[in-house]
Amino acid sequence: MVEVKVYENVLRGNDAIAAEVESELRKAGVYSCNIISSPGSGKTTMLERTAKSAGELRMGVIEGDLQTTRDADRIAAAGAMAVQIKTRGACHLDASMIKNAMTGLDLGKLDIMIIENVGNLICPATYKLGEKDKVVLVSVTEGEDKPGKYPSIFREASLMVVNKIDLLPHLDFNVDNLEKDARAINPDIEIIRLSSKTGEGFDSWMNWLNSRVAETKA
Amino acid sequence: MVEVKVYENVLRGNDAIAAEVESELRKAGVYSCNIISSPGSGKTTMLERTAKSAGELRMGVIEGDLQTTRDADRIAAAGAMAVQIKTRGACHLDASMIKNAMTGLDLGKLDIMIIENVGNLICPATYKLGEKDKVVLVSVTEGEDKPGKYPSIFREASLMVVNKIDLLPHLDFNVDNLEKDARAINPDIEIIRLSSKTGEGFDSWMNWLNSRVAETKA
Repeated sequence: MVEVKVYENVLRGNDAIAAEVESELRKAGVYSCNIISSPGSGKTTMLERTAKSAGELRMGVIEGDLQTTRDADRIAAAGAMAVQIKTRGACHLDASMIKNAMTGLDLGKLDIMIIENVGNLICPATYKLGEKDKVVLVSVTEGEDKPGKYPSIFREASLMVVNKIDLLPHLDFNVDNLEKDARAINPDIEIIRLSSKTGEGFDSWMNWLNSRVAETKA
Repeated sequence: MVEVKVYENVLRGNDAIAAEVESELRKAGVYSCNIISSPGSGKTTMLERTAKSAGELRMGVIEGDLQTTRDADRIAAAGAMAVQIKTRGACHLDASMIKNAMTGLDLGKLDIMIIENVGNLICPATYKLGEKDKVVLVSVTEGEDKPGKYPSIFREASLMVVNKIDLLPHLDFNVDNLEKDARAINPDIEIIRLSSKTGEGFDSWMNWLNSRVAETKA
C-alpha cells in the first residue's frame, strides 16, 4: 500500500504549509475563503459580480486553472487584484501553490482574499489551503442530489451558494430538496440562493462576506 | 519526486488491467464507452433515456459514484442491466474497479457496456478502463470555454455530446463557440447536440451508438 502512505505524507506536508498561509493571513488581518464547485457552476461569474459589488471591500482573487489565464483576466477586468495559478493538469489547488501565488498579492492592501479552486467537486475538498472558510457553489442546472453524491465538500463547507436561480422557471429543480440533502450531511451549513446574472440574492452573499471580514478584523 | 514515481506505477498497473478488460470485451463482441462529465451535466438522465430507447440493443451500465447507488437504481428502473461501483471517495474509476464490476454483468447477453464515470472532468481522463471510446458530455448551462480549460478529456474523447439544448433560449450560450474550442484541441472529435429531457437530437446519439456496436461485431 505504498500509494496510501505517500498520499498521507503529501497531505501532512500540505497541512504544514496551509498553517503558514493561515498565519500570514491572520497577521495581515485578511479574511480568506476557498470556493469549490463543478466546472461551469458559475464561480468566475459570481466573482466578477463580487468584484464589481465590492465597494469599500479591498478584494484579491487567486484563480486556479489547469491551463489558461482566462479566469484571472475576467476578474482583473472586473476591477479586483487577480493572480492565476496554472496547475498544469493537477485536479486541485494545494497550500504550496497558494503560498507561492500570495507573493503576487499585496496583503497589506487587502481585506479579503478569495481563492477560486479548480472546477472539481471532489479532490479540492481534501486540501486545506489556509483559508478560513470553504464555500461550495451549486448550480440549479445540476442535480438536486449533489450533496449526497459528493459529501466531503458539503461536510467541509461553511456556506453553500445555490447559483443560477434565474433559470428555475425552466427547470424541474426543487431547491428545498437540495437544501435538505445538504443539511442531512452538514446541519450547520449556511445557504444562500442567488443569481450572478440578474443579481437576485446577491446582497445576501455580499453581506455574508462583509460580516466574515468584520469578524476577522475584530 | 516520490509522488510522481508512484503515480506512474499506479498508471502502468492500471493500463495492464485495462488491456485485460479490453480483451474480455473483444472476445464477447461487446462495445464499450466511458462517459465523462462534470457533476450535474446529465450523464444519468441521458443513460435513462438511452436505456428506454435501446430497442434491440442489449445494454449494460456500470455506474461510478463516490457513495450512493442512486444512479444504478435509476438505470435499472429504466430497464437496463446496471451495476454500481462505490469508489468510497476516489475521484475517478480505474480499470480494476471495472474488471470487478464486470463480474456482475453477463457479457454474453450484452451488445454494449456503458460506463458512467464519477462526475469529474479532470481525473477520469487519465485512466484507461479498457473502453473503446471516451465520450465527453457538456451541458449548455456550463461555460463555452470548457475544452480549453479542461483539455485532456477533450483530447481523449471520440465524441462530445452537448446536452440540455432545450435550455438554450434561456441562456447566453453559443454552441458554435464551444464546438470551435473543442475542435481546436481535437480536430477529429465528433459532436452531437441533444436534449435528454425533450429527446431532440437523441436519434443522432442512438445512431452513433448503434454504428459503433455494428463496427465492433463486424
